Amino acid sequence: MRLRIGMIGGGQGAFIGAVHRIALALDGEFELVAGCFSRDMANTRATAASLGIAPERAYAGYEAMAEGESRLPPEQRIHAVSIVTPNHLHVAPARLFLERGFHVICDKPLSSSLADGEALAATVERSGMHFALTHNYTGYPMVREARELVRSGALGTVRKVYVEYLQGWLSSDLESGGHKQAEWRTDPARSGPVGALGDIGTHAFNLLEHVSGLRVEQLHAVLHTFVSGRRLDDDDMVLLRFAGGASGVLCSSQVCFGRENGLALRVFGTKGALAWQQEHPNDLHWTQEDGSVKLLRSAGATTSDASRSLTRTPSGHPEGYLEGFANLYRAFARRIRGDADIEAAFPTVHDGVRGLRFIDACLKSSADSAWVPLA
Amino acid sequence: MRLRIGMIGGGQGAFIGAVHRIALALDGEFELVAGCFSRDMANTRATAASLGIAPERAYAGYEAMAEGESRLPPEQRIHAVSIVTPNHLHVAPARLFLERGFHVICDKPLSSSLADGEALAATVERSGMHFALTHNYTGYPMVREARELVRSGALGTVRKVYVEYLQGWLSSDLESGGHKQAEWRTDPARSGPVGALGDIGTHAFNLLEHVSGLRVEQLHAVLHTFVSGRRLDDDDMVLLRFAGGASGVLCSSQVCFGRENGLALRVFGTKGALAWQQEHPNDLHWTQEDGSVKLLRSAGATTSDASRSLTRTPSGHPEGYLEGFANLYRAFARRIRGDADIEAAFPTVHDGVRGLRFIDACLKSSADSAWVPLA
Amino acid sequence: MRLRIGMIGGGQGAFIGAVHRIALALDGEFELVAGCFSRDMANTRATAASLGIAPERAYAGYEAMAEGESRLPPEQRIHAVSIVTPNHLHVAPARLFLERGFHVICDKPLSSSLADGEALAATVERSGMHFALTHNYTGYPMVREARELVRSGALGTVRKVYVEYLQGWLSSDLESGGHKQAEWRTDPARSGPVGALGDIGTHAFNLLEHVSGLRVEQLHAVLHTFVSGRRLDDDDMVLLRFAGGASGVLCSSQVCFGRENGLALRVFGTKGALAWQQEHPNDLHWTQEDGSVKLLRSAGATTSDASRSLTRTPSGHPEGYLEGFANLYRAFARRIRGDADIEAAFPTVHDGVRGLRFIDACLKSSADSAWVPLA
Amino acid sequence: MRLRIGMIGGGQGAFIGAVHRIALALDGEFELVAGCFSRDMANTRATAASLGIAPERAYAGYEAMAEGESRLPPEQRIHAVSIVTPNHLHVAPARLFLERGFHVICDKPLSSSLADGEALAATVERSGMHFALTHNYTGYPMVREARELVRSGALGTVRKVYVEYLQGWLSSDLESGGHKQAEWRTDPARSGPVGALGDIGTHAFNLLEHVSGLRVEQLHAVLHTFVSGRRLDDDDMVLLRFAGGASGVLCSSQVCFGRENGLALRVFGTKGALAWQQEHPNDLHWTQEDGSVKLLRSAGATTSDASRSLTRTPSGHPEGYLEGFANLYRAFARRIRGDADIEAAFPTVHDGVRGLRFIDACLKSSADSAWVPLA
Repeated sequence: MRLRIGMIGGGQGAFIGAVHRIALALDGEFELVAGCFSRDMANTRATAASLGIAPERAYAGYEAMAEGESRLPPEQRIHAVSIVTPNHLHVAPARLFLERGFHVICDKPLSSSLADGEALAATVERSGMHFALTHNYTGYPMVREARELVRSGALGTVRKVYVEYLQGWLSSDLESGGHKQAEWRTDPARSGPVGALGDIGTHAFNLLEHVSGLRVEQLHAVLHTFVSGRRLDDDDMVLLRFAGGASGVLCSSQVCFGRENGLALRVFGTKGALAWQQEHPNDLHWTQEDGSVKLLRSAGATTSDASRSLTRTPSGHPEGYLEGFANLYRAFARRIRGDADIEAAFPTVHDGVRGLRFIDACLKSSADSAWVPLA
Repeated sequence: MRLRIGMIGGGQGAFIGAVHRIALALDGEFELVAGCFSRDMANTRATAASLGIAPERAYAGYEAMAEGESRLPPEQRIHAVSIVTPNHLHVAPARLFLERGFHVICDKPLSSSLADGEALAATVERSGMHFALTHNYTGYPMVREARELVRSGALGTVRKVYVEYLQGWLSSDLESGGHKQAEWRTDPARSGPVGALGDIGTHAFNLLEHVSGLRVEQLHAVLHTFVSGRRLDDDDMVLLRFAGGASGVLCSSQVCFGRENGLALRVFGTKGALAWQQEHPNDLHWTQEDGSVKLLRSAGATTSDASRSLTRTPSGHPEGYLEGFANLYRAFARRIRGDADIEAAFPTVHDGVRGLRFIDACLKSSADSAWVPLA
Repeated sequence: MRLRIGMIGGGQGAFIGAVHRIALALDGEFELVAGCFSRDMANTRATAASLGIAPERAYAGYEAMAEGESRLPPEQRIHAVSIVTPNHLHVAPARLFLERGFHVICDKPLSSSLADGEALAATVERSGMHFALTHNYTGYPMVREARELVRSGALGTVRKVYVEYLQGWLSSDLESGGHKQAEWRTDPARSGPVGALGDIGTHAFNLLEHVSGLRVEQLHAVLHTFVSGRRLDDDDMVLLRFAGGASGVLCSSQVCFGRENGLALRVFGTKGALAWQQEHPNDLHWTQEDGSVKLLRSAGATTSDASRSLTRTPSGHPEGYLEGFANLYRAFARRIRGDADIEAAFPTVHDGVRGLRFIDACLKSSADSAWVPLA
Repeated sequence: MRLRIGMIGGGQGAFIGAVHRIALALDGEFELVAGCFSRDMANTRATAASLGIAPERAYAGYEAMAEGESRLPPEQRIHAVSIVTPNHLHVAPARLFLERGFHVICDKPLSSSLADGEALAATVERSGMHFALTHNYTGYPMVREARELVRSGALGTVRKVYVEYLQGWLSSDLESGGHKQAEWRTDPARSGPVGALGDIGTHAFNLLEHVSGLRVEQLHAVLHTFVSGRRLDDDDMVLLRFAGGASGVLCSSQVCFGRENGLALRVFGTKGALAWQQEHPNDLHWTQEDGSVKLLRSAGATTSDASRSLTRTPSGHPEGYLEGFANLYRAFARRIRGDADIEAAFPTVHDGVRGLRFIDACLKSSADSAWVPLA
């Protein structure tokens, strides 16, 4: 039986809402049966209609939706809600639905303020409901394979981590020209105190800690805005020191002309190394102890069960962004159905809080031009 | 509103059935509501249950399914059926469903015999129903882009086409060891008179004619079986002459050790060239008239509407095999809904017949060690 | 002490002569002290002057040069001669210098006729002098590594060999426009009975036999001329059958628009595979028995002595075409100095004869549209 | 006529001396006729003998060499000297030879102290002789092409520069085990106050300023030593701010396990971008104003004269490290012969001084954990 899910945000014209809808449907784990897709009820109604959602379950607001769904009999009521609104509108609906006994899956970053994020983490704990944060890049098979390799000791002790997330689409002032995505992502009221750092830097940060198993202890950040008139950072450089002595560099930028979605991670240890790039996600380059490079391929001959469980096709049949996203939804579904044994299968509210702490530390470091600790 | 679809074949343990199910669901165009998934009714029931299909629409045979669905009121009855059985079981159900007024989408090759395929083409014409053949590689955005470039004259007159589809998974005798996929694909009773040539060579052939716009006129084929005891070809080499004077080479093999799913196409013209590889499907290398190579990327800055309409995400968010497959289902849905303006959006029964003629010509050429015409 | 060498051909404006000069000088093994660089004595004189060659050792003809050098005292006289003339002018000077007791290193193909080539092989044997043929691609470290891997059994039994040498520079009729390289290479009087096949197809053929250790037993060739008015083939496709049951495809073309110097080899065995491309010559992709791909790098961590001896720099410092060429000169020098233990270190007159037999067989096959044996 | 050159350093067992010898001989511009190759006269004598250098021109010390060569008649005396000793032994012989009227070509870094370097620059000016510093990576054709593209305005205004030089060979304590290269490169007495930063970081720094045309104005550096017992930095991270507002990151490391010689540069401007990697030096990726990526190839169809003059072979015939090095020697020769019109053709003493200032600033920044200016 499919789990029933509702959606907050993601009306016509949105990008990430459509991605979430494909991801939840791809493996048949969820059925989308309710939604409050927009502040504009006409948009919500049209979106609902186009998705085959019953008109009475197209809600004018998330409060109405929580109320309406709660009143339905359990066999009709949604199990979970997917929150795909801009950053500043994550916490309130998440809290409400959790308190009403619904599981929540939410886009990142968790919130536009650390305090709100921490409060939400407490709510998750109290509620006993499941909460997933869609740091979707952890859903790629070769990212999981990389994490397993590090854990297995194949790299020895990790010394260096280089991670970057470079895009070019904000190289010019799109936000003044009515570009919806650019508008809200560069608007402090909707995105919070950071731009590129929150939008993509937190993905890079999450990925590096997820794969390396290391914790950033100190950082020195330079947040900068290149495009004149822009109100949030569009370019970030962060030096990192990890517990245990490793160090690294994190760069996130949205003004690297021509770069599409350039998330790339490299990890170097005392006896091995790894390199992965999101734009060719089915390849993982593993430098082995003898110094030679082995190309691991998604679902390939020598991959582990850890990554194999995240693929749907034989090796050589490329899976991509949507499948990685769907892997998080599938794991979330399994967790809801009671499978407790899916450690690391999806990022949680704690990953979200950690991302917010990272943002806070970067802001402070950049303002003070100094190294600051990351708790 | 979603279109209702049923499935023949694709019970638990099958590969391609699961792929079709993801493809039909991915864009929300279809809802799978009926099926006859296996000769084994227990398998059919279990598959139906796992997919949330009502028990009364899990049928013991395709005849019963055609009968049962026909009796349902139009608002419940399926619109279309997806046929994902082994090759020898495509034609009979296709014919029956077409005659009963259902649209059909069918895996390739069309049939295990040319005569049956031609008869089916006549049935399609008579029936007035839509018929799609899932040569799924034509669903990739960059394949469509390549086709458009050739059509636009960007390559001048095409002179050379090199296409290959190399796999390694049948390098040893898996079929004796109970490997299901290997068993039926090397069994003449289920696959027809060819092995690798039908399984993957026809994909390569379809791709080359689809992109180049050329028609093979003559060919010289060498079909060979490397693995001792195997009953069908596992390796093929075919020299090609095209109408208009171009020439080329097609190689398909399932004994190229270690190769995963190596479909690759190169087209050279008098003033340009193209290269595309399925395993990195979002890249298309275009040699321009000035001799420089331009990397075209799926949904990228300079791609045409032809390919852009086949993408769901911004550039740099890799889509893959499942999305390519889904593009055929989406086009099929649009055709059913009445959009006649989707030329080349999905392969038809005529592509299927052409593939069978290619197989026949290769068999004859290989047996006679001679060049033979392809009508 | 450097060996003294003379050169026939390679006057100002020639391409390959300059390459040979760099190759002979690169390791300091040879010193160029004499030459007959052109039929045009003014060119010879100017070339000699620019190279610091004494005027009295700039000869008007190769006969005069053989005569003049023979008369010099042994401590001044050249040890060897390098022949870099067009194909039809290889045999006569080679024979003369061998008979006069000089070693010979000669560009490929050996000759423009098989009979001449065979006669020259007999002369080499009789003379007791050393003869090297510059199939320079065998001088690349990773080609040597590939050969060693095949020999070591790492691939099991070889089943398939795909080799191609694709260029695009003759896509149009350059020869009518006074392009020197195009003129002689498309002129039967200077190149012999084949164009692309002799110029680059023989390299591909030599490479495949060198690396795979297999011998072509039968072939089916299609030689074709695309460019109107051209007198020799500019495009070739050859199906191959090897002793022992392997098969393969060789393509050579000079009308593959935009391709620069696309020599590429792939070898598939029963338990491993190799892939190498001349344009990125320091990489060798080895598919291991477990199905994973290992990237071997020139001078890299896990390469063998066979290839390591052909590098001059640590791994990661790319060497290329000139160094590969120089490796043949260095091996030739060592052979002259008495090192007999350099099996396979440079191609010999027998490789040259084999190449001419390959050309002959291809011509016959293409004319008859039939499979023909290769002795 | 070849220019006569002598060499200081580069005795048997050295790496970079052999490279310089190939580079100077490759184009026939220089003839090596004298040398003081080692403190060990036996080594000097053996090296000289193996190189065909007259015994009387194998000198026991550089002072004796300066003296001896000065006494020779002009038509025998060397024109220039090549200095390939460890870093701390560059300045003294350079000064002496300049003062005696010899041109000097010297390995990098210029010196182990800024004061010495500045003094040497003054000596160069006073002497009127030519001085080249072998920041050899500027000798690559595609590096020159990149520089030209930036200059031409193809990238608009440069905003971001990422440069890295990652190696792995010092991942463990080789210096304790008698590894010669590791010994001197990690020895403050011979290398100066920095390890990886001087050895490879200065190459990265030189490359980034050379190509981007920008000047670093401020930097924040973290120099670190990972390998226990090592006396100099083996890993560096440097944040950069440029005059005009651009920013960037420079990383140099010799403990990135498995990395061979990973020098890579990326430059992003307001309307274009470039990417180049030393290990595949013949490729340059240029993101054009329309957002598409064009692959420029060494000697390729659309490259400019700036880079074409640095190639010796047609496109597709890979040139590499040694040819890049040789390009500096060739330009140095032309300068000596009087060609004043070779702006940027080789790095000068001023580039060397700038590298030393970079080192000084990094040392200060790392010690103070603060941003510091770079004059």
